[in-house]
Amino acid sequence: MFNKILIANRGEIAVRIIRAARELGVGTVAIYSTADRDALHVHLADEAICVGPARSTESYLNMNNILSAAVATGAQAIHPGFGFLSENSKFARLCEEMNIKFIGPSAKVMDMMGDKINARAEMIKADVPVTPGSEGEVHTTDEAVKIAEEIGYPIMLKASAGGGGKGIRKVNNVEELVPAFEAAQAEAQAAFGNGAMFIERMIFPARHIEVQILGDSQGNVIHLGERDCSLQRNNQKVLEESPSVAIGHTLRNEITAAAVKAAQHVSYENAGTIEFLLDESSGKFYFMEMNTRVQVEHPVTEFVSGVDIVKEQIRVANGNELSVKQEDVTFSGHAIECRINAENPKFNFAPSPGKITNLFLPSGGVGLRVDSAMYSGYSIPPYYDSMIAKVIVHGENRFEALMKMQRALLEFDVEGVITNVDFQLELISDPHVVAGDYDTSFLGNVFLPEYQKED
Amino acid sequence: MFNKILIANRGEIAVRIIRAARELGVGTVAIYSTADRDALHVHLADEAICVGPARSTESYLNMNNILSAAVATGAQAIHPGFGFLSENSKFARLCEEMNIKFIGPSAKVMDMMGDKINARAEMIKADVPVTPGSEGEVHTTDEAVKIAEEIGYPIMLKASAGGGGKGIRKVNNVEELVPAFEAAQAEAQAAFGNGAMFIERMIFPARHIEVQILGDSQGNVIHLGERDCSLQRNNQKVLEESPSVAIGHTLRNEITAAAVKAAQHVSYENAGTIEFLLDESSGKFYFMEMNTRVQVEHPVTEFVSGVDIVKEQIRVANGNELSVKQEDVTFSGHAIECRINAENPKFNFAPSPGKITNLFLPSGGVGLRVDSAMYSGYSIPPYYDSMIAKVIVHGENRFEALMKMQRALLEFDVEGVITNVDFQLELISDPHVVAGDYDTSFLGNVFLPEYQKED
Repeated sequence: MFNKILIANRGEIAVRIIRAARELGVGTVAIYSTADRDALHVHLADEAICVGPARSTESYLNMNNILSAAVATGAQAIHPGFGFLSENSKFARLCEEMNIKFIGPSAKVMDMMGDKINARAEMIKADVPVTPGSEGEVHTTDEAVKIAEEIGYPIMLKASAGGGGKGIRKVNNVEELVPAFEAAQAEAQAAFGNGAMFIERMIFPARHIEVQILGDSQGNVIHLGERDCSLQRNNQKVLEESPSVAIGHTLRNEITAAAVKAAQHVSYENAGTIEFLLDESSGKFYFMEMNTRVQVEHPVTEFVSGVDIVKEQIRVANGNELSVKQEDVTFSGHAIECRINAENPKFNFAPSPGKITNLFLPSGGVGLRVDSAMYSGYSIPPYYDSMIAKVIVHGENRFEALMKMQRALLEFDVEGVITNVDFQLELISDPHVVAGDYDTSFLGNVFLPEYQKED
Repeated sequence: MFNKILIANRGEIAVRIIRAARELGVGTVAIYSTADRDALHVHLADEAICVGPARSTESYLNMNNILSAAVATGAQAIHPGFGFLSENSKFARLCEEMNIKFIGPSAKVMDMMGDKINARAEMIKADVPVTPGSEGEVHTTDEAVKIAEEIGYPIMLKASAGGGGKGIRKVNNVEELVPAFEAAQAEAQAAFGNGAMFIERMIFPARHIEVQILGDSQGNVIHLGERDCSLQRNNQKVLEESPSVAIGHTLRNEITAAAVKAAQHVSYENAGTIEFLLDESSGKFYFMEMNTRVQVEHPVTEFVSGVDIVKEQIRVANGNELSVKQEDVTFSGHAIECRINAENPKFNFAPSPGKITNLFLPSGGVGLRVDSAMYSGYSIPPYYDSMIAKVIVHGENRFEALMKMQRALLEFDVEGVITNVDFQLELISDPHVVAGDYDTSFLGNVFLPEYQKED
């Protein structure tokens, strides 16, 4: 096993990885920006190295400094967490060249799945259902009009290099198409240096269903079931759960088999997630994209499957076989995660950084887990993501999990900053959410307008 | 289901019960002494009532005030937790008379198992192995000498009403017997108003193995496996684990079957624990006593069995059937609990009450749970038990659990008082403990002398 790994991240995921490494007896090197000197991940790691100033482009995205830190400390591997450099194939390639193990898939696979037109083509080859749409790149508006007519409006225009909501447009009719195409293309060109566009039919209403995948270097690929991440605001997940109430036994077998097939097709190693859109009325599902890293919401899967995904990541990166076979994975109960952000839901979710003057995190009892990098007296810096904690619960069934989440959120007390705890409490009490009756548009189009009317 | 229950306890177990009740949608009434005004259980409950001054005889043992509080708040049931009134059959009887459900077995069963001579006789009737010893009470020293000769030295002299180490003596030979008998009898008479004595062969070396039992009012009795609680200091458990490394498949079946038989014999309702002494060399085990309440160490069983014992207690007290059948209970992995006390292991474990100026409880990751009533700024009062937290971990196997415990204890940070965290860290690193090679005398006779030599 590795003697020492470097964690190229911050916040709760850095803390999560440090904890997993420590439990494996693996030494840890934290990196930090000058704004994160007092961060928990710095405190918990065996060693910590400053890699630059607050701006992440100069620190957490600073490949040279991070690689230098790895070399200087003798770290044999780098865990990128999520965000930052986690899906940056250039970084993965640099690691490979420097003989430092990148804890994730190969740069080649990251490239293959990161290019969405290419990923679509690969999935078609692998016989994984993709959304009806263009074959390959759509070069001109004329071509776009023709394809849109064939598949029928509304359609989604997407940039092949897209991400973070950039280069993507919903188009309802031919009048909207030409200006939308030009705008999205320009946006993608500016943001990613790549204006390649493609078209997909708009699946609506839809559930966001994703399947957790683990692969090792011996060619074993397993799935750990699905997660329902349909509760989103502006494409940001807010609450995730497993299993999905929208999926029965047969569909679960189909969608997880498709995900395994997808991962096997690209000889996937390490943890990854295949995201699908599910048309609930027909039971048809469509490949959306693959995330070639650990997800924020991985703990819900850990609760229902009992598999420690981060430990598996480290183990398989070390060359070990997966510690479980598919037939040994059993699923029990129901898990839910609420993301807790330092933000003001009553003020358009404006970030609320600042000093935490008092902190009480829920704990104790059966089936509760809080992943956080907060401590009493910690100052949340304004430079990064506003997520400050994840509350994850596991119950015998969905109802018990919801009751447990309510209990946990009622205990959650953070003073000094504004959080979305009360917002999450209202969300889990909403009759639609209690009934499991929601799609990807529910939170933004139904829940939020009501919530904002309250005052 | 009950609308509201009163929790006749304090500290982490009161918090544990409040959390379970809340997750069941049951309202909660806390009671508190004047010393506990700012305690977490008071803060977390829906209602709280002061039942007297700091001294527990005047507050947490004050039956009249507690019953008045239940009546005044309309609580339909009382959960006694452990310690205090939890094994007081008079209190259980008063509850019954006032039509308040006592969340535990009937007063009759408590009496039956609380009298140790009687419990021994019942276990013999139930065909559960008891330690070779006297049949019923030993009235005179002459009788004691005769019986001791028959069973062979060393023997244990025990008071039928004994508890907390009172009225109990180890006797190595006939010379020691007469004075020991008279002293123990007088001690028992003074402490319990009952000088009835009995004799048992001394089982040594022995493991303390206990089996968790759950029974309902429909007559169902199940077990949730065993716990090994052999790591004790002065008969106080320090670290508990499940499963026991000293027990194989066959012995596990035998000992759990014996425990179920014992509970069935007395038509046991609610949670209880049958404690056995195990002679590891012969594989023979002997009934020691039954605890007719939830135990401090119940979380290790919750981790390996997935059953929420406190919720089951509330449910069966409400008249519901047990939510699981024996054949549905499955066991997975290995769980360990370390009791964290505010005490100074370097100064004869002297209690260390006081104000917690800073607190960081370990959390996050897979398979970690901390049950505690602490918060940052809380003052631990000097009047009660020194246990301030329980750290419980669950791993795929014992090694992983130990690594996880180490990770958790290294994170544990409480400032302002002295704790046994470092002591526990040394304990779990001891080669004997790592190997699982210990009996009830190990901690006091082997580990502690070495530990105290260190300075």
